[in-house]
Amino acid sequence: MNIIMDAMGGDNAPEAIVKGSIEALREYDVKITFSGKEEEIKKYLNIEKNLLNRIEIINAEDVITNEDKPVKAIRKKKDSSMVKGMNALKDGFGDAFVSAGNTGAILSGGLFIVGRLPGIERPCLAPLFPNGERFSLLMDAGANVDCKPLFLNQFALMGSIYMENVLKIENPKVGLINIGTEEGKGNKLVNDTFKLLKESELNFIGNIEARDILSNDADILVCDGFVGNVVLKLMEGVVSELMGRMKNEILKTTKGKIGGYLIKDSMKRLKDKLDYSEHGGAPLLGLKAPVIKAHGSSDSTAIKNAIRQSKIFLDSGVNEIIKEELDRGGNDN
Amino acid sequence: MNIIMDAMGGDNAPEAIVKGSIEALREYDVKITFSGKEEEIKKYLNIEKNLLNRIEIINAEDVITNEDKPVKAIRKKKDSSMVKGMNALKDGFGDAFVSAGNTGAILSGGLFIVGRLPGIERPCLAPLFPNGERFSLLMDAGANVDCKPLFLNQFALMGSIYMENVLKIENPKVGLINIGTEEGKGNKLVNDTFKLLKESELNFIGNIEARDILSNDADILVCDGFVGNVVLKLMEGVVSELMGRMKNEILKTTKGKIGGYLIKDSMKRLKDKLDYSEHGGAPLLGLKAPVIKAHGSSDSTAIKNAIRQSKIFLDSGVNEIIKEELDRGGNDN
Repeated sequence: MNIIMDAMGGDNAPEAIVKGSIEALREYDVKITFSGKEEEIKKYLNIEKNLLNRIEIINAEDVITNEDKPVKAIRKKKDSSMVKGMNALKDGFGDAFVSAGNTGAILSGGLFIVGRLPGIERPCLAPLFPNGERFSLLMDAGANVDCKPLFLNQFALMGSIYMENVLKIENPKVGLINIGTEEGKGNKLVNDTFKLLKESELNFIGNIEARDILSNDADILVCDGFVGNVVLKLMEGVVSELMGRMKNEILKTTKGKIGGYLIKDSMKRLKDKLDYSEHGGAPLLGLKAPVIKAHGSSDSTAIKNAIRQSKIFLDSGVNEIIKEELDRGGNDN
Repeated sequence: MNIIMDAMGGDNAPEAIVKGSIEALREYDVKITFSGKEEEIKKYLNIEKNLLNRIEIINAEDVITNEDKPVKAIRKKKDSSMVKGMNALKDGFGDAFVSAGNTGAILSGGLFIVGRLPGIERPCLAPLFPNGERFSLLMDAGANVDCKPLFLNQFALMGSIYMENVLKIENPKVGLINIGTEEGKGNKLVNDTFKLLKESELNFIGNIEARDILSNDADILVCDGFVGNVVLKLMEGVVSELMGRMKNEILKTTKGKIGGYLIKDSMKRLKDKLDYSEHGGAPLLGLKAPVIKAHGSSDSTAIKNAIRQSKIFLDSGVNEIIKEELDRGGNDN
């Protein structure tokens, strides 16, 4: 199993990417192919020969930054670590691709270079979203801002297969993000999707109201990419603002200051629990080969975890099962 | 000035509605017309004669509950306090209508009974949303789940006039809720709306990312009613979940328990600040006469505040200014 790493993507690249990959080499039975500036990558490769033997480098002199326009960058920056890495994935040189780089570019590259699984209308970005004491797969978190009911139905199918086979959740529950719980609530897209999901063989548990997004039973939360991105970012913003303001309120009084000191550890625990960026990478589901988006601020541990996730993705045969299900047409009519 | 009150709408009706209205009669130069069960309303009317002289009652034997389907309830429950109250508003018997009842029914009644201002495509529910240390008008918070760019452009116009004349904010800033800050980000609706807003005479400050919804400069946050409702409810859910979990985390250790006790007041202050339900009613903008939706759990003080808000709405002549602006066509092309 050969995982292709975008060595230049992310806030801590290439150091965290290379170091995390080496940690993964020590722990898992994988090979690593780095795509990126060979010279810079080699700086961090003073390691044992037996590990070095499991590493390849595709030299790529250019880098796609967060300031680049996604589609344009994928088309024009042919010598970038991302484009070269994705081309290698497409050509079968490796089995999965991991990047902590420009999210939009990863999505565009996934679509235009790696390509969709036959029968899949749109690939979908699916991070694990902290939901109560567990996690739900939020689909779509931003890959498709304008959706049709069939797209959302396919997201639910892919998400169910992923949760069942990668996270080993039996008969995973699908919820539809909506502005009310009863059938008939919401906009046209959500209404029509409700009907498709109800008729499907998936374990559809109905609408999930936005106020219950942190406290519901769904393993998969389905919505279009605009709403999903709003949910993800709002959640991030509210948690961080709330923690900040809490601090301000607490520091206003001496009593509060002492109290704040005493609850510091509890707060840190809570913040970590709600931080979705801590929980590995987000797979881009529906592509011919696994593409995993690691968080931009990934450290070496997060990178190692993303590689672990790619390995489980590949081992579990998610893509093969998706193909079988689509051929069977079980969910698709 | 005669404010028509839905005496039977809300969790604490009719008591809180009648008592809040009496408080308003003592403080403001208004008349009150109650729509509802006369017998029940009269239970709370053991008051001075000079106040009684400023009260009328429209007897209505039926009530629209939160379980009723909005459109159906407005059509069928002709003898409900809400339908009778709105009809009285339409017929010019009063100047504004306040209800803490079924939100969907208020929206339907506003549209079908009271009617739109000429030139306005869709009325819009516009609560004050806690935004940093200030408030923004969130429009639309759920009245229109499927929108066109022109609707959103009109929301922005109405919101600007409301904030300028009711909340006395000079040259109010309009922000567009989006999944990125640059022009060109987001779905088709938001993209096309961006162009309209940029060309308008409004003080458009661009896209506001969901993560910055609690910390931005906009006085008006524009989005479709589906996204707006998700934002409002998610915010409510996250704040309440977070406070709950914080409590759980804190109670896990003795140190935390003492700390928690010491910060209790600070937490209460913060929670109140973020509770949008505390901040009066939400106007339904774009109707021929003001309709104000008070929070379902309103107590008598909240009801008094909603009446105060109706009074300012009427005094400020918002509707007249909206009509003038539309006639002028300044924002509408």
